[in-house]
Amino acid sequence: MEKKIGIADTTFARADMGGLAERTLLAEVEKAGYKIKIERYTVPGIKDLAIACKKLFKEKNCDLVMALGMVGRAEIDRQCALVASLIIRQVEIEICKHILEVFVHEEEAKNDKELAKIMHNRTVKHCSNALWLLFDQETLRKRAGTGRRQGFEDEPFFEI
Amino acid sequence: MEKKIGIADTTFARADMGGLAERTLLAEVEKAGYKIKIERYTVPGIKDLAIACKKLFKEKNCDLVMALGMVGRAEIDRQCALVASLIIRQVEIEICKHILEVFVHEEEAKNDKELAKIMHNRTVKHCSNALWLLFDQETLRKRAGTGRRQGFEDEPFFEI
Amino acid sequence: MEKKIGIADTTFARADMGGLAERTLLAEVEKAGYKIKIERYTVPGIKDLAIACKKLFKEKNCDLVMALGMVGRAEIDRQCALVASLIIRQVEIEICKHILEVFVHEEEAKNDKELAKIMHNRTVKHCSNALWLLFDQETLRKRAGTGRRQGFEDEPFFEI
Amino acid sequence: MEKKIGIADTTFARADMGGLAERTLLAEVEKAGYKIKIERYTVPGIKDLAIACKKLFKEKNCDLVMALGMVGRAEIDRQCALVASLIIRQVEIEICKHILEVFVHEEEAKNDKELAKIMHNRTVKHCSNALWLLFDQETLRKRAGTGRRQGFEDEPFFEI
Amino acid sequence: MEKKIGIADTTFARADMGGLAERTLLAEVEKAGYKIKIERYTVPGIKDLAIACKKLFKEKNCDLVMALGMVGRAEIDRQCALVASLIIRQVEIEICKHILEVFVHEEEAKNDKELAKIMHNRTVKHCSNALWLLFDQETLRKRAGTGRRQGFEDEPFFEI
Repeated sequence: MEKKIGIADTTFARADMGGLAERTLLAEVEKAGYKIKIERYTVPGIKDLAIACKKLFKEKNCDLVMALGMVGRAEIDRQCALVASLIIRQVEIEICKHILEVFVHEEEAKNDKELAKIMHNRTVKHCSNALWLLFDQETLRKRAGTGRRQGFEDEPFFEI
Repeated sequence: MEKKIGIADTTFARADMGGLAERTLLAEVEKAGYKIKIERYTVPGIKDLAIACKKLFKEKNCDLVMALGMVGRAEIDRQCALVASLIIRQVEIEICKHILEVFVHEEEAKNDKELAKIMHNRTVKHCSNALWLLFDQETLRKRAGTGRRQGFEDEPFFEI
Repeated sequence: MEKKIGIADTTFARADMGGLAERTLLAEVEKAGYKIKIERYTVPGIKDLAIACKKLFKEKNCDLVMALGMVGRAEIDRQCALVASLIIRQVEIEICKHILEVFVHEEEAKNDKELAKIMHNRTVKHCSNALWLLFDQETLRKRAGTGRRQGFEDEPFFEI
Repeated sequence: MEKKIGIADTTFARADMGGLAERTLLAEVEKAGYKIKIERYTVPGIKDLAIACKKLFKEKNCDLVMALGMVGRAEIDRQCALVASLIIRQVEIEICKHILEVFVHEEEAKNDKELAKIMHNRTVKHCSNALWLLFDQETLRKRAGTGRRQGFEDEPFFEI
Repeated sequence: MEKKIGIADTTFARADMGGLAERTLLAEVEKAGYKIKIERYTVPGIKDLAIACKKLFKEKNCDLVMALGMVGRAEIDRQCALVASLIIRQVEIEICKHILEVFVHEEEAKNDKELAKIMHNRTVKHCSNALWLLFDQETLRKRAGTGRRQGFEDEPFFEI
């Protein structure tokens, strides 16, 4: 069954996370034999992503949306991320379809090279999450509690 | 009467809290003579738990959901937990059925061994809470104001 | 006219604030000649109080709910209180009936004796507030701007 | 056209801001020739103001509500103000009528005399805002971007 | 097709951002050949902007609203901005039309001259964003991930 994935991204981010997500998703579904369509919606900043998500669901009929953005270093930016995240999640539960929040905070990296690496890794790994949520939830379940990370290496896990 | 319990958990957590909850619930209901069915839903991280809860209620008809997750040590993670928790609670009051939030913060433990112990203890004790809420509210009432803790030893209580 | 008051409390609290509220309300209405019925609902922690309140309104038809709980000393606990309080208030405005939040923070007291005193004083005084809101709003109005405190002595007030 | 203004205030505040608002509004409308009715609703604390506002809109049919309260000095109090303010605003956008939040923080003043002055000034100036919103929005528009303050002197403004 | 743009601003701000937005929009649409109408709504402070936005959508039928305001230097002000921003975004997703939040924090600037410059730059650049969202989303998409800033110079971007 074909699914439609929305990609909401920003002009604020310092790298084209949306474009990378688009290419990654298309490459992955070709390998896996899934069928998807992609809709893009670019807005100025992360606080505009929630409305972009809602429009992608309501006007473009998406089944899942990836909301990609970068958060600056200032303390004001952390508060922006809080607002952005809360409202994105309100759209998600209102619509009852997944939104994968792919936010990278500048303060996670020591320099631009590291920042680029985190943005790449997090975006690519969340593309896998998106496809698993839509086409293969069993894989997610097998990975439950296994310390998976997006943006960094996975962490060790243990028995309880 | 048979009840359906949803278990929402994450691939981010460093131990399989969802699996432990499932085993614990099944063992407890066998002892107590209650009837339950269990539905699992695994998502990437704690901010995805709210939509998992909503889907467990709407699509799987659960009577109660346990939302299990681990919160990392970074300051960003605390804000993630705030968002996750707020949205989980919005689902709870919208649906008007209990969600038991079983979150463990890495900063609660000094090392992985202690972390595992907290995750185990909190998960197991909240399984009892889940079953009391569904089948035996009188027991909760008798325990009102008695310093009960999940994850740690209970605390002393006093008369007022 | 008879009114129904819900009492939502927790097993986490280190004293039986719910029981005290029940006894106090019953003693006060006997003196005042009001008629009330009381419904209890005990949940694990303060973040579960909002759904308890909603259930007391929707399933038990309460006219007002007292939500009693204790907040621990850790920084995580403060965030829990924020979530608990926000969601309780969302239930309140959705239902359009008063919820009196009777929260005691462990950090308000230097020791358990002082804590017990605050819990007692705050619970008892909010029972008066509950009854005034339901039966005698004129008394509240006369007390407007007079520095009333629950948990502690009233504060001095001044003319403006 | 006659308008109805609700005044929601608290018993916690250390001065009768609600009473001052009532007197000020009545004096101002007499000068201006407007017609208003006033409804009062007094609640224990600022977190109870949102439901008071909602009841003033729904049960008393108010066109605008002034929500007056005082915020204590403790860090807990700041969080209370956040909750109170967020829920008041949710009522405002649900009902789609203005609520003027007239909060004074004890930490804004060095002593009670200064506190009284801020409470007086802020209350009185917000009465003007209330009347302009209801009867004379053109005046507000002319004052756009002119550094107006309630509680203190206006600030200098500049061209952009 | 003619679009209607709402401009919500405040009397608190120390410069007339709303007036500047109005002039800028009108000049830009003349160059571009777009057709717009503008509605103004001035309120006391930033926490009143959300209801202004809602009224501009519901009563004036706007297609997009710019919410312009200034945030003071005190810590209380940061919390005000959080509330203002969250509620503005709730209106946005409820109505499902864009609100561009154009907030300038006094602490972003070292003095009034710098503040004026930020206010000017941010307002003017967000006017472009408003028009692109309404008339030319392709331009926004081409600018995705290119480090665009409002209020300051754009930042360098990189490939991922």
